[in-house]
This record gives sequence, C-alpha cells and structure tokens, in this order.
Amino acid sequence: MKHLLSLESLPAHEMRAILDRVAHFKANRTTHERPLTGQTWALIFSKSSTRTRVSFEVGIRELGGDVMFLSAVDIQLGRGEPIKDTARVLGRMIHGAVIRTFAQQDVEDFAAFSGIPTVNALTDDEHPCQILTDIFTFEELRKESIAGKIVTFVGDAACNVPASWIYAAAKLGFELRLAAPRAYWPQPDVLRRAGAGADADWTLHNSVTERIQVGSGTVELIQDLRLAARKADLLYTDVWVSMGKEAEAAKRIEELSGYQINAEIVALAKPGALVMHCLPAYRGKEIDEATLEAHASTIFTEAENRLHTQKAIMAWMVHETSSAPSRSGNS
Amino acid sequence: MKHLLSLESLPAHEMRAILDRVAHFKANRTTHERPLTGQTWALIFSKSSTRTRVSFEVGIRELGGDVMFLSAVDIQLGRGEPIKDTARVLGRMIHGAVIRTFAQQDVEDFAAFSGIPTVNALTDDEHPCQILTDIFTFEELRKESIAGKIVTFVGDAACNVPASWIYAAAKLGFELRLAAPRAYWPQPDVLRRAGAGADADWTLHNSVTERIQVGSGTVELIQDLRLAARKADLLYTDVWVSMGKEAEAAKRIEELSGYQINAEIVALAKPGALVMHCLPAYRGKEIDEATLEAHASTIFTEAENRLHTQKAIMAWMVHETSSAPSRSGNS
Amino acid sequence: MKHLLSLESLPAHEMRAILDRVAHFKANRTTHERPLTGQTWALIFSKSSTRTRVSFEVGIRELGGDVMFLSAVDIQLGRGEPIKDTARVLGRMIHGAVIRTFAQQDVEDFAAFSGIPTVNALTDDEHPCQILTDIFTFEELRKESIAGKIVTFVGDAACNVPASWIYAAAKLGFELRLAAPRAYWPQPDVLRRAGAGADADWTLHNSVTERIQVGSGTVELIQDLRLAARKADLLYTDVWVSMGKEAEAAKRIEELSGYQINAEIVALAKPGALVMHCLPAYRGKEIDEATLEAHASTIFTEAENRLHTQKAIMAWMVHETSSAPSRSGNS
Repeated sequence: MKHLLSLESLPAHEMRAILDRVAHFKANRTTHERPLTGQTWALIFSKSSTRTRVSFEVGIRELGGDVMFLSAVDIQLGRGEPIKDTARVLGRMIHGAVIRTFAQQDVEDFAAFSGIPTVNALTDDEHPCQILTDIFTFEELRKESIAGKIVTFVGDAACNVPASWIYAAAKLGFELRLAAPRAYWPQPDVLRRAGAGADADWTLHNSVTERIQVGSGTVELIQDLRLAARKADLLYTDVWVSMGKEAEAAKRIEELSGYQINAEIVALAKPGALVMHCLPAYRGKEIDEATLEAHASTIFTEAENRLHTQKAIMAWMVHETSSAPSRSGNS
Repeated sequence: MKHLLSLESLPAHEMRAILDRVAHFKANRTTHERPLTGQTWALIFSKSSTRTRVSFEVGIRELGGDVMFLSAVDIQLGRGEPIKDTARVLGRMIHGAVIRTFAQQDVEDFAAFSGIPTVNALTDDEHPCQILTDIFTFEELRKESIAGKIVTFVGDAACNVPASWIYAAAKLGFELRLAAPRAYWPQPDVLRRAGAGADADWTLHNSVTERIQVGSGTVELIQDLRLAARKADLLYTDVWVSMGKEAEAAKRIEELSGYQINAEIVALAKPGALVMHCLPAYRGKEIDEATLEAHASTIFTEAENRLHTQKAIMAWMVHETSSAPSRSGNS
Repeated sequence: MKHLLSLESLPAHEMRAILDRVAHFKANRTTHERPLTGQTWALIFSKSSTRTRVSFEVGIRELGGDVMFLSAVDIQLGRGEPIKDTARVLGRMIHGAVIRTFAQQDVEDFAAFSGIPTVNALTDDEHPCQILTDIFTFEELRKESIAGKIVTFVGDAACNVPASWIYAAAKLGFELRLAAPRAYWPQPDVLRRAGAGADADWTLHNSVTERIQVGSGTVELIQDLRLAARKADLLYTDVWVSMGKEAEAAKRIEELSGYQINAEIVALAKPGALVMHCLPAYRGKEIDEATLEAHASTIFTEAENRLHTQKAIMAWMVHETSSAPSRSGNS
C-alpha cells in the first residue's frame, strides 16, 4: 500500500519515479491508461481550495475513477468522531482518499486505519503535491534536472510549502535559498528531519544568513532578498496570509513587505530564470502585477501541472511496482 | 469558441439554431449523441438554485460529460482572486463552465480568459437559458412559432428575466407586454441595447403605457395589468422577491400586489393562452394556487424543458458549426 | 413504483426479498448487474451524515447510476417552495431520490408527487436502511435467521432507530428488548402501528417492565439494563445525543448514564452474542472503548453493510418484480 503523506517520508527514488511519469500523463491526457476504473475516491477537505479540488476531481475521473467531495460541512475529520473510526468506515467503502486538513497526524492516522491509498493535499506541515508539481514544471520548461540548481523561495519560510521544498532539496540535491526575515525562518526541527546535522539550529547564532547541509542538498536562510535572488534559476513565492492566518494579516504584511518579487529582483536572477507562484496571487504584495503577467505562461503552466502531477501520483500509488525507469538526477 | 453569455449578444439565427435542436434532445433523451464525452464541466454558482443546478448536472452527464459543482463556499468568483486568474487556471483543467452569479461582467471575463465554452446560468442582467426554454415550451405546446404572438410578463419588469425577454422579442419578432408599476419598468438602456430608437427613454414622458419598437419586435410598458393581459398568447410571471432582495421584501410585495395572475386575468387572455412561471412560485403573491395548479402541466413541462434546452445549448457550443436548418420564424 | 419509506409500510415478504439479495451484492461488488445505468439519482440531505452519504454515493455508482448530492444549502426541502413543487420538478429530471430529513411526511409527499423511486435515509420517525443493514449483518455473521432471537436495544428507545426495530420485530418475528428509562420508552402509538393490541399503552401502568405482542414478534420495555441484556443474541446501541438534540445534551447524558454497553453487560448476554453500534460512537457514554474495540470487526462490518444493503434496496426498487426466492425466516 502506497501513500503520499509527505516529501519527508518519500524516498528520493520514489520521488523520481513519480516525476518521471508526469510527462506521460500530460502528453496523453485523453488516451493514457485508467488505473482507477471501478474505484471511488473521496476528497476530504477541511479547508476549501478551488485549484486543489478541481485538479484532483478532474484527475481522478480522467484516471477512470469516480470522485466524491466531502467538505468540512459534510465530514468533521477528527471532531465528533475519532479519525480511526471514520477511516475504518471509509476504508471499507471507497478506494482512495485525498485529504486537505490542518494536522499532519490526522492524515497519517487516516492512512494507517483506512487501509486505502491516501494523499496529503495540504496540511500545516507539508504540501507535497504542490512541490512535486513545481519541480516537474521546472524540469519541463528548462529541459534539465533541478539537481544542482538554485531555487529561491521568497516570503514566509516557516510554513508548509517551504518545508516541502526543504525535503525536496535534501533528496534531489539542489540549493534552496529561503529569503525571509528571521522570524519567518523554518524551525530547526524541520531542517533536522531533512537531514541537517549539528548546524540545524540557527537560533543559536545571531546571523543574517545561514548555510546548512541537508541530505544531498543545501538550505540557505537569507534575510537579504537581493542576495538570495542573485543567480537563482527559479524565483518562487506564495501568499503571505494563507487561510487561517487572517487574524495576523496586518502584522504579516508589514513584516514581509520587503519580500516582493518584481522586475528589480528578477533582474538579479540568472538570465532565463523562471518565476513561479502557487496561487492565489496578491498583486502588490508578494509579487507585482507586471512580473506576474510577464511570467503568466510559467505560472499557469505550473497550475495546470497540478493536474498531471497528481495523476502520476495516484497512478503510482495504485501500482505495486513503479515501472518507469529513472530519467535523470540524484535519485 | 461559442459561449452563451446573453440573449443580447446571441444572433437571431443562432437562437433559432438552438431552439430547433431542443425537440431532438427531448425526444431522444437516452439515445442522443454525447458530444461532451471525455469532458469535465464545472458549475460555478455564487447563488444556489435547485432547478438550474439539477438540470445542468443531469444534462451534462446525459451529454457524456462529467460535472463538478462549485458553490460560493468552494470558490469565491471575483473575490480574493481576480477572475482572470481563476479563469486561466480552470480553463486549463476543465472543458466548459456554467456560471450563476451577480455581475454580468464576471461571466464575460471568465469566458474571455478561460478560453472554454461558458454559459450564463443567471446574472443580474440576464437569464438566457430560462427564456430560451420558455420560448421552446411555447412553440412546443402551441405547435407554432412565437413570432407575431403576444407575451405578457407580469411583475418586476426591471430585472434579468424580463430583460432577456426584451432581447428575445427584438430578435424573434413578437409583442412583449410588461405589466408593472412604473417603478418596475425596465431601464431605457436595456431597451436601447435591444434596438429601440429615440423612443427608448420612457422616463421623459408621464405615460401609463409606452409602445417601443425593438428590432423586429415590440415592447409595451403597461401599468394596467388587465389591459396588458387582453388577448395575450402567454401570461408569464416570476417571483416578486428574488434572492438577494429579501431586505426590500415588504415594499416589493406591497407595490406589486395588484400584479397577480389569477382566473380573472387568465379570462382576459386569448382562449388557450398558456400560463408560465419560472419557479419557485409563491401562492397568493404573483399567482394564486388555483391558477398554478390549473396550469401545472404547462409549468412543470416548462421546468423540465430547462434540461432539454440546456442540452441543446451545450451541444451547440461544442460544435463548430450548427448543423440544424432553420425551422421557422424571424431568424 | 416501489419506494422504501419506512419499515412500517414495508411488507414482511418484501423485507425478506431485500435481505435475501444483500449477500449477492456483497459477494459480487465489482461484477454484479448495473440496474441504474443511464440514471441520475439525487441525495437530498437536510442533515449531514458521512456514512449515509458515502454509502449511497458509492452504491448508486456501483449500480451504474450517476449521483448528485444536494445539501440543505443547495435545496431547502419544504421551506421556501412546497415539497409538491420541488418533487414535481425533480421527478421530471432525475430517476430516484434518497432523502435524509426531519419530517416523515416530507419523504412521503416527495414520493407521491415526484413519481420516482424514493428512499428514506433517515427521518424523525424511522431509519429503515440502517435496521435492514443490521438484520442482514446479524444473519450474515451468525449464519441463522433473526426470527426467534433476542435483540436488546440500549439507550433512547423513543426515537427513529428503535421505532424501525419495533416494526422489524413485528414482521420478522423476534424478541426486541428496549432497555431504557421510562421517559425514553417508545410512544404507544408506534407500538399500535406495529400491531400491538390493547396492551400497547404502557403509560397506563406504573410498571418497570412491559411485554407487548406486536405482529409476529414481541417488544419488551425494560428499565433494568442487566435484566434486558440477559441471554440476548444481539446488544445494540446508538448515540445518546443525536443531531438536533444538542440543546438537551447534559440532561440526556445524565438520564441515560446507566445504559452503557460494557464488558459486564456483554457477560450477561448469550455466549457469542454480537455487539453493534450504528455509529458515530461516543466512548465512555453508550459504550466503552474496550467493548467497542473488542467488537470492532462486527461494528465496522455493520457499517460496510450499509453499502451492500442499500444497493439491494435500490435494485429491488427499480425492478418491477423481485426475482429472488425467499431464503428463510418469518416472511
């Protein structure tokens, strides 16, 4: 039984096995195999999301399956009924689950008790489907492996998206720069779990940059955005105030206000550097309108690739062996 | 790429091409062609509606497609994320969109940026699917074209349903009487856009009736319901307090209270005149119980025809050429 | 046209005809016939329920149909629009309805006006799908008919689940013991409708137990849980505070606090007695953790059997004749 619960727990060669199949599903959208035929999968979403929902609903159907959307109104995961009961009931009726919720432990428990393939479609800890999509998109558009490249994440580096980026850097061997104020640097525990040694705990130092080895990659914590952007192959950002953090919106906007991707920052990156955004985008905040629109082709290809990547993930989950040979990279 | 965004923008010959195909989809409900096979369409509804939702969900599936329902809880069209972003994302994942929302501009923008067939399933400006259904139903039950006939709309004539009726009258060449207090007469701009000349601006006169030429049809604004009902071929009404107008319910009910379709009004119309209601019906308000039940066969056939008409609309949208020859009328 | 509106109105031989087909649908989950092919069924749920929703959605699809979920947000059954109008509209668009709501009359009216097969998936009066599932599960696991056996229901005996148990006892001929404080004993009217004679009205006596003949079965009202559990073949409980009764939660929990299924109670029942719970379970209230987990295999099989039983119900509804020969019991 395969799950996709986190990039932390996904071995590098499995990550590569998934990435290697995305192009196949993209190139053969209407003609590829349909491994979910006869199955019903549930989307169990404690928080709403258009992009994640639509990409999974369409993807499951295109793989031959049926899909059921259960929102927080329909199912209160972990409230009222213990997850182990809900999981045991659903596990006997449906064939797979895609869960978007708060606690990572809830997704892990669901997978353990349901006995059906389970996908983490966003938790407070990780967003593995998004980062696999981003890496595929980078390699698709640049036509080269991400191994050895420089990825600069700009914004709140203490949440789920940058955490998944950290685990990916450790496994695929690239340089990840996190451009953020110190208060938004990732917890040392995340760096440790990604494979960092004694230098994981940056809170012991009074530094403005830190360079930490994690697995086969490197993570650099950098307060100075201009420094972080220099010679980057990919500039990447995310919304400053994500769902559930609206109460601290004003504070976050003020503290992150210097960390905007705009023409000046793009000019510091490598020629031909990509700009990505996992959307929704707030113009004038984490990115400006002109830069977003100049890179719209990349950004909306990235959004579309959620569909193809997630199809590759689900197809990989329901096959006992991953048949695709490794294509490239550090896996 | 064809859309159905309004009757204002739908040429008369396209309106006829759609109407001419409805009977085919009705007569062959389980055996007709399935032009949406392999496609997923989204219903994007900012306001809920049982009838519209069910008819589109069933229709899309019967045409071979899959369907995804996105309510205001799931997707906040035009709030949070600009419509141009949502449209560009969805346009890469799904194959068609049916939108029920407030601003007409939002539907127009979605169509422009998504690049996928888009249906207006009700906006503040128009309700084209309903009026196409009504016209089909009239011609089906009366076995003759609506051209040259008299349609009397009773109630609030300043909103979306009568606006779509005005554009239809202009294109299909019938006489539309709007029986309403002056405060509920349509904006001169709607009449102008329907093709009225200098006589569009009734607000310049202190009249109790106005007769305005629009395209190949005529619109009459009439305060006196009994006068408006005389010799009508179709008496038509709609709820007085539609969704979003609950705050002014008492005022609207008082001002419209004389405008009820009942036996006395029906007796003024032509023998065999039809009575329609786009539902839900409020007995004792815009129609009385006895009249509703006496005409239930027409009214629930009208409701059912939403299904068949919308299937004809979607089939027309995904065919590059409309293959059906014109059957009748002013197109 | 067949409906499943209540066990009260379901003849014993039809109950048997349904029960006799469940094993077929369970044994051939991916290969059985698909009698709903080409149909769309609607789930119309005024109150949410994961288990009921998932089991019906999956079941309808596995029978070949498409399914549409309409929650209280999407459709306000009996509010705004009379049920007879909603039913007449939906009856022309969809092929079957599964309704979970409050008033039994609403389900009856929907069935009468829609003209399509209608299932009661819980009302204030009855929960027929659950009790048919429970009986199937008993006979499946015990490999013998429930006729002549002793079923002990523990908890609030004045609501829908025990009412359906009463009608089942009357028709299938078993002994139903209701272990509850007098304030939670069923209304005499339910006993009368189940077939009780003059002894139906226990409120005339100041008794601590009552034994009432209903049809071919017996209902015993028993205040003493230990007495009620003695030699039972099945111990059965349900949540004390069901949806809509949260306001009286503290009162109910106090009054029902002695009525818990735990090891001491199970020890009084017959060796090999089954323990069932229709879920969700509240540990430490109507059942303790150890007993729930000791009987988890039964309880989650019971939950899974909702799927198979409901498929048998729907298949029975759309066949004009029930083809299965009777297998056993008092039918």
